[in-house]
Amino acid sequence: MPSVLWILFDGGGDRPNGGKTPFHVAFKPTIDYLTSLGSCGLLDPISPGVRPGSDTAHLALFGYDPYKYYTGRGAFEALGAGIELRPGDVAFRTNLATVDSSGVVIDRRAGRYIAPEETRAVEEVMAKIGDEVAKRYGVEVVYKSTVEHRGVLVLRGPVSHKVSDTDPHKVGMPVAKAAPLGNDREAALTAEVVNYITARFTEAAGGLEINKARAASGRPPINAILLRGGGYMPAIEPVAEKYRVKAAAIAGVALIRGVAKAVGMDVYTAQGLGGTKDDVFDHAVKLAVELMGKYDVVFLHVKGTDSTSHDGDFQGKVAVIERLDKALAPYLDHLLKNYFIVTSDHATPVSIREHTGEPVPLTLYGPDVVPDDVAKFSELTCWRGALGRLRGIDIMPILASYLGLSEKFGE
Amino acid sequence: MPSVLWILFDGGGDRPNGGKTPFHVAFKPTIDYLTSLGSCGLLDPISPGVRPGSDTAHLALFGYDPYKYYTGRGAFEALGAGIELRPGDVAFRTNLATVDSSGVVIDRRAGRYIAPEETRAVEEVMAKIGDEVAKRYGVEVVYKSTVEHRGVLVLRGPVSHKVSDTDPHKVGMPVAKAAPLGNDREAALTAEVVNYITARFTEAAGGLEINKARAASGRPPINAILLRGGGYMPAIEPVAEKYRVKAAAIAGVALIRGVAKAVGMDVYTAQGLGGTKDDVFDHAVKLAVELMGKYDVVFLHVKGTDSTSHDGDFQGKVAVIERLDKALAPYLDHLLKNYFIVTSDHATPVSIREHTGEPVPLTLYGPDVVPDDVAKFSELTCWRGALGRLRGIDIMPILASYLGLSEKFGE
Repeated sequence: MPSVLWILFDGGGDRPNGGKTPFHVAFKPTIDYLTSLGSCGLLDPISPGVRPGSDTAHLALFGYDPYKYYTGRGAFEALGAGIELRPGDVAFRTNLATVDSSGVVIDRRAGRYIAPEETRAVEEVMAKIGDEVAKRYGVEVVYKSTVEHRGVLVLRGPVSHKVSDTDPHKVGMPVAKAAPLGNDREAALTAEVVNYITARFTEAAGGLEINKARAASGRPPINAILLRGGGYMPAIEPVAEKYRVKAAAIAGVALIRGVAKAVGMDVYTAQGLGGTKDDVFDHAVKLAVELMGKYDVVFLHVKGTDSTSHDGDFQGKVAVIERLDKALAPYLDHLLKNYFIVTSDHATPVSIREHTGEPVPLTLYGPDVVPDDVAKFSELTCWRGALGRLRGIDIMPILASYLGLSEKFGE
Repeated sequence: MPSVLWILFDGGGDRPNGGKTPFHVAFKPTIDYLTSLGSCGLLDPISPGVRPGSDTAHLALFGYDPYKYYTGRGAFEALGAGIELRPGDVAFRTNLATVDSSGVVIDRRAGRYIAPEETRAVEEVMAKIGDEVAKRYGVEVVYKSTVEHRGVLVLRGPVSHKVSDTDPHKVGMPVAKAAPLGNDREAALTAEVVNYITARFTEAAGGLEINKARAASGRPPINAILLRGGGYMPAIEPVAEKYRVKAAAIAGVALIRGVAKAVGMDVYTAQGLGGTKDDVFDHAVKLAVELMGKYDVVFLHVKGTDSTSHDGDFQGKVAVIERLDKALAPYLDHLLKNYFIVTSDHATPVSIREHTGEPVPLTLYGPDVVPDDVAKFSELTCWRGALGRLRGIDIMPILASYLGLSEKFGE
């Protein structure tokens, strides 16, 4: 039975730039050959004009309406940090910060740079506080540092995301008390737990060796943790049930791995696929082709097109596309016997360096797909194609139908 | 920073007519030149096949789902009459009518023609009754005649639109008593107020000089006011908040001015722009170009294409389009540095003389917009373009994204 290889160029879409987009100028004979045999179109990852984040766009592309399933940044930040969330888990984005003796925030980032040993010490303190919370409140606490002063805090138990932030969002204000935003018992308990953690962290911080070292070198102490953006992990029917599709994702970026995991995909990594602009794709493509024997859909995430766009690096973006295409070349015969789809999760024009709301090009090749006249995968050509203008949420049903997996709606 | 000039030809869309639509045959070199440099598509103002009114279509084009925001004709009729509504205001469409001595309706239109001095006399009576209502019920009353026997009645205060019509909708029936359609206090009060106004109007009508004059010339008296279609003014988040777009509308038609105002646009008029088929656009276009320096989006409403369509006047419709285009010509260099969008709010085919449900042509030019092959703005060409088929509600997000104003959804 055929299966699908899905190449996703993160932030791959671009603006016309006088007739030259990275997709348009990149030498990518394999992608373009398959494009010439298949159908093209434009894809609005969410809906026309909407500027997606990578998380909301991937939810949509995986077949889940982000307006329903995107339940606050905290949850997706935690997924991005590699924490496996269960439905009902509540997650916050956190800052390590500095407060004065009266509890007023004087630095919302504790100097921003946090050394690895400081991260470890903070995680140890949080683990200890977590044990106390588990005993006192029956709530499990998971804390993980991410980048610099940032981290995520996950609460698991009879909790709710309906509590106010403790982050005052500016300096010169005291750390706020979390307050329940609903009348339910869960919100009340969550606020109490959050306030307990907040108070205990500042207490414990006084005795930390790292803060003595910081004081000695004139750096602000890490003596407060600020929470914001509480969100809960929704119950998500796995792709295998919702679309009857057995799917694997190969990705180096934690956030994408997290979203893929959340929708029930098996997640793989590959040598060379670190999620940077210098990734090499030979191992990743080899793995993808192998996995096509076991899965209906194999999704391969290419981060470099987005990173180079954020850097304004046109040639770098072209190079990422060309490198991926070259890695596909040895498998052309195999790809011709299966389905092949290429798209982006959003445009990140090199000239703008940020996500924008234009549609991205889309190509779909397969033994049963109508061939149109488009022979090059790019923003400047795909709009002529037979697929017309689709949305991210349409992709999974289309693939499931070509694979003969979808359930009939009606008789 | 660039901004957008948005030209809207009211009822501009038409049917093919053997290859000749007004847009297709009109000599409009400026619009067509910008079209040749930009993207085209088809636009369903609401959704495919839906025959929009100008009010619902403009709501959608301004970025507001009319199924959510269009809350009864009364409210939009009042906006059209130039009454500034506040959220929660309840508005009815009214007919001046004739009843016999037992209160049975014998003419739902009081002979239809209402002279200007009769309109004034009715408005004076209604103002007096309004004062009584304010004292008795704490509800403010605004009444305004519109065309012939028609008018609008607005109630402001602790009121509700959930009351039944007093208009029996046919002759030979008594004026109906308004009844609350809900259990709330507001509905009960509103019904009481409506019945008070109804009774007092008929009472006061007996003594009116205009009715003596009408009797003398054998015309039916204006001695009843019939209410129908109660609707409330919804709370509408202004475009500046919902889309982060600072927008101005230049329009001569009260209904369009009302809808624009309701969504928080600044509304302008211009010399020559009366909302008729004979409008001249030089001042309006000059103003639009000036306003582009102060606003992100400047919307210019052209009514004449609709009026001529309702009259079945093909050449007149062509002339309106050509006149508008000619007014744009001096500003071509300016337009080339900004965004430019042209569309209609619905088709009003000259052969049908009524709004129909086809999509209308759409062109979008801008420095960052993909150029396609379409070089003429018309129903017969735009379907080939790179925009594909969009909906009215998509326009604002697309513009906001190109202008770099939209908020990112997700990370």
